[in-house]
Amino acid sequence: MNADTQWHYEDFEPTGSAIGYRITRKLDEVRSPFQHIEIFETTDWGNLMLIDGAVMLTSRDNFLYHEMMSHPALFTHADPKDVVIIGGGDCGTLREVLRHPGVRSAVQCDIDEQVTRMSEKHFPELCESNGDPRAQLLFDDGIAYMKNREPGSVDIVIVDSTDPVGPAEGLFNKAFYESCFRALREDGILVQQSESPLALLELIGEMRAEMGKAGFGAFQTLSFPQPCYPTGWWSCTLARKQAGAGFDFREQDARGKEFDTLYYSADIHRAAAVLPPFVRKALNEG
Amino acid sequence: MNADTQWHYEDFEPTGSAIGYRITRKLDEVRSPFQHIEIFETTDWGNLMLIDGAVMLTSRDNFLYHEMMSHPALFTHADPKDVVIIGGGDCGTLREVLRHPGVRSAVQCDIDEQVTRMSEKHFPELCESNGDPRAQLLFDDGIAYMKNREPGSVDIVIVDSTDPVGPAEGLFNKAFYESCFRALREDGILVQQSESPLALLELIGEMRAEMGKAGFGAFQTLSFPQPCYPTGWWSCTLARKQAGAGFDFREQDARGKEFDTLYYSADIHRAAAVLPPFVRKALNEG
Repeated sequence: MNADTQWHYEDFEPTGSAIGYRITRKLDEVRSPFQHIEIFETTDWGNLMLIDGAVMLTSRDNFLYHEMMSHPALFTHADPKDVVIIGGGDCGTLREVLRHPGVRSAVQCDIDEQVTRMSEKHFPELCESNGDPRAQLLFDDGIAYMKNREPGSVDIVIVDSTDPVGPAEGLFNKAFYESCFRALREDGILVQQSESPLALLELIGEMRAEMGKAGFGAFQTLSFPQPCYPTGWWSCTLARKQAGAGFDFREQDARGKEFDTLYYSADIHRAAAVLPPFVRKALNEG
Repeated sequence: MNADTQWHYEDFEPTGSAIGYRITRKLDEVRSPFQHIEIFETTDWGNLMLIDGAVMLTSRDNFLYHEMMSHPALFTHADPKDVVIIGGGDCGTLREVLRHPGVRSAVQCDIDEQVTRMSEKHFPELCESNGDPRAQLLFDDGIAYMKNREPGSVDIVIVDSTDPVGPAEGLFNKAFYESCFRALREDGILVQQSESPLALLELIGEMRAEMGKAGFGAFQTLSFPQPCYPTGWWSCTLARKQAGAGFDFREQDARGKEFDTLYYSADIHRAAAVLPPFVRKALNEG
């Protein structure tokens, strides 16, 4: 090892596994009222953001997560105009949402302004659409925001949160999902990051059950690689208010999209929805 | 952390990233003439095998790799009868190959007998087909074995090796691929583990180029999650002698297979062959 580098590891207690990076230096840190945010420079992954010691993103691989949290839902909805992102303070999901020309409003509501300030400094590429007139950045409690949002005023809610412990715990239960259900229009879609299909499979089932109790009628879990999160294999789950609406997506629009993506494509969208037998069995889809 | 556990990390110098496990104790170790093999007990991943400090497999997640190294190739070949596995000393790939009733011979040639001995002790489930009369376990140099194998006597060669450094270096070049090409029948398929599509993407292109120089006419890279390897996202590459043979697989046979798999399915086979735009571009498939 070069004397100027060291290794930084994140130990995930629930999975008994760890992921680490070779870092050169700490670039920045701030203790917000909510959490401890640190930025490191790595040798191979660009900048690295940790929140309370947990890896949030790296410059190099965040495109996987951000593209998959946004484009599948936006191409599944027939005509998404009004989008709300709960969490997502790094602004990467917001940037992807705003690539869709049909979107007329995108509200990002993260409780911690410092996440966005750090992202503006250290991940400026993710914040390049923050000045878009369709974008509104709120720094507030996402649970309260969804509770107070006008009923039937949202097409897609994207819950781009940290793990279901700490500040984000309240984003994984029936009460929150009921707020989302009420705020969504009849053809609306809720999207939530749903952890690792391998290590935290039971969580996906529990999340779907809570969403179902809140009224959501149909679910689709998409999996994708995400090296910076536990096991390197991640998922998001889409929920539709109406069971009958299904998850066929606007494939021709996805193929003809006028913006570039690194990971997302119509074929990847279709492939990501294919779950392996052991996951299907756990979700009673087998 | 519990006082009885500790974290063991593998730092991958080429990718600048690391993967770790929470371990309870070292179960075994041996220094063979070729390498240092260690077995640890983990809290959440079953047993863990390291070779020269590099993670080879865990009890919990090896099914991903072993199923994807075997079933896609075996269902792509019209009628695979004679299979050779180079490396694969843990016997997991051999077990999957032998699930196919049409296979009449499966030779596993690993240079290091101690890998198999350790697997028999600590991963006995992977060795449960070692006594199959169709199986032949050789402990010899795979490069020499393929060089001396009778021309046109093999349907599928599976190169289930460690990374292209150290003992396995000679398994990633034109000379070895020429031996494989000669040993394969006209409709034969070569399969090789081809590292991470994210972190080691250039290696896939280089491998395909070397295979092409050896005469192989068509290539297909499949990607799949593999948490214990760098980035958690892995791939294998199939090469056909004849370009025209293509990669359509026996989908009906895959759907009707009479053995269980945890990860592989006909739908997963199709999905794994879908590469994201950034990989397609790097491989000039975009």
